[in-house]
Amino acid sequence: MPHITLNSAAPGILGLLWCRPETGRPLSELAEVLLRGPSTLTRGERELIAAYVSARNDCQYCSSSHSASAAAQLPGGMALVEQVRADAGRAPVSAKLKALLAIAAAVQQSGLSVTAEQIAEARAAGATDLEIHDTVLIAAAFCMFNRYVDGLATIAPEDPAVYAAGAQRLIKEGYLPSAQPARLD
Amino acid sequence: MPHITLNSAAPGILGLLWCRPETGRPLSELAEVLLRGPSTLTRGERELIAAYVSARNDCQYCSSSHSASAAAQLPGGMALVEQVRADAGRAPVSAKLKALLAIAAAVQQSGLSVTAEQIAEARAAGATDLEIHDTVLIAAAFCMFNRYVDGLATIAPEDPAVYAAGAQRLIKEGYLPSAQPARLD
Repeated sequence: MPHITLNSAAPGILGLLWCRPETGRPLSELAEVLLRGPSTLTRGERELIAAYVSARNDCQYCSSSHSASAAAQLPGGMALVEQVRADAGRAPVSAKLKALLAIAAAVQQSGLSVTAEQIAEARAAGATDLEIHDTVLIAAAFCMFNRYVDGLATIAPEDPAVYAAGAQRLIKEGYLPSAQPARLD
Repeated sequence: MPHITLNSAAPGILGLLWCRPETGRPLSELAEVLLRGPSTLTRGERELIAAYVSARNDCQYCSSSHSASAAAQLPGGMALVEQVRADAGRAPVSAKLKALLAIAAAVQQSGLSVTAEQIAEARAAGATDLEIHDTVLIAAAFCMFNRYVDGLATIAPEDPAVYAAGAQRLIKEGYLPSAQPARLD
C-alpha cells in the first residue's frame, strides 16, 4: 500500500504523476524528451538504458515497465533485455551501446564514479557528446524515478502482461500526461 | 574539465541546462515547482532538504549552491545548514522537519530504504501527505541532479562567494531558464 493517499488506483509512477500534476507535467516531459525525442540513439536503446538502471536500483515497477518497452522496440526482444540486465558486458549489443551502458552503471552508483576512461571508450566506439550526455541524464533520471516510485511504496503489478500492455500503450501514446487518466487504469 | 563540450563556461548544472534546452526546460520547471512553488514547507526548508541530500551524495556544486540558498532563506543561516549537514538528528529544527530529513536521507540511499515507521513519525509530527510526497520527490530529484552534474564532471567553483551571489540571484529570479544565459555566467 502506498505511503500516502493517492487519487487513483493507478500503479507505480502513474498514480504519483496524476496525484500531483504540478510535478507530474515536467517529469512526464523529461521522460518524453529523453526516451522518445529526436536522438541518434533508438527508442529501444534508450528504454534499455532505463530498464538497466532501474534493475540495478531494484525498482520492480520501473524495471518491468521499461524492460517491456525496450523489448517491444528492440529486434532482440525480451531475451536481449534479459541478457543485458544479467551481464551487459557480454550481451550481444554494439560496442557503443555497451560503453554507454557501462557509463549508466557508473552513474547508478554515483556521478563521481564515471571515469574519463569510460568516456574515452564510449567516444572511441563512436558515441557523440550528445549521446554521452543523454545516457548520463537517462541514468540519473531513473535514479530519481526509481526512488520516487519506491520511496512512496507504490504498487508494482506482478503480471508481465500488465507491463507488455503498458509498453504498447506507451509506444502509441508516449509519456505526456493523458487528458483522461482514468482510461489508463 | 567537463567530459563533454559545452556551449558556455557556466559551472555546475547551468552549463548543462543551457547546452541541452530540450531537457533543460523540464528540469528547470521541476526545480521551480518543487523548491519555490506553493507549499506549506518554506522555500528555506525545501532548499535545506536539497542541500542535505546533495551533501550526502558528495556533490560539491549542488551542496554548495543549495546550502547557500537555504542559508539565505532560513532564520538560522549557514550555521543551521551546517548543523543539519553534520547531524540532522540533533540539529535545532522542528520535529516535523527532522522527520522529513530522515525520510530524505533514506531516499538518498534507495527508495526501498524508506520505512513505514519513518512515514508514521513524520505524520505524527504534523507532516501532510503532500509534504511527505514533496520531500521524497525533492530527495529523489537531487539524486538525479547530483549524478547529472558529477557524471559529466562539470566545474564546481571553490569560492563560497560565488554560491552566495548565486543564491541571491536565485531568490530574485527563480529556477526557470533565463532568456539571456550569458548574464548568469
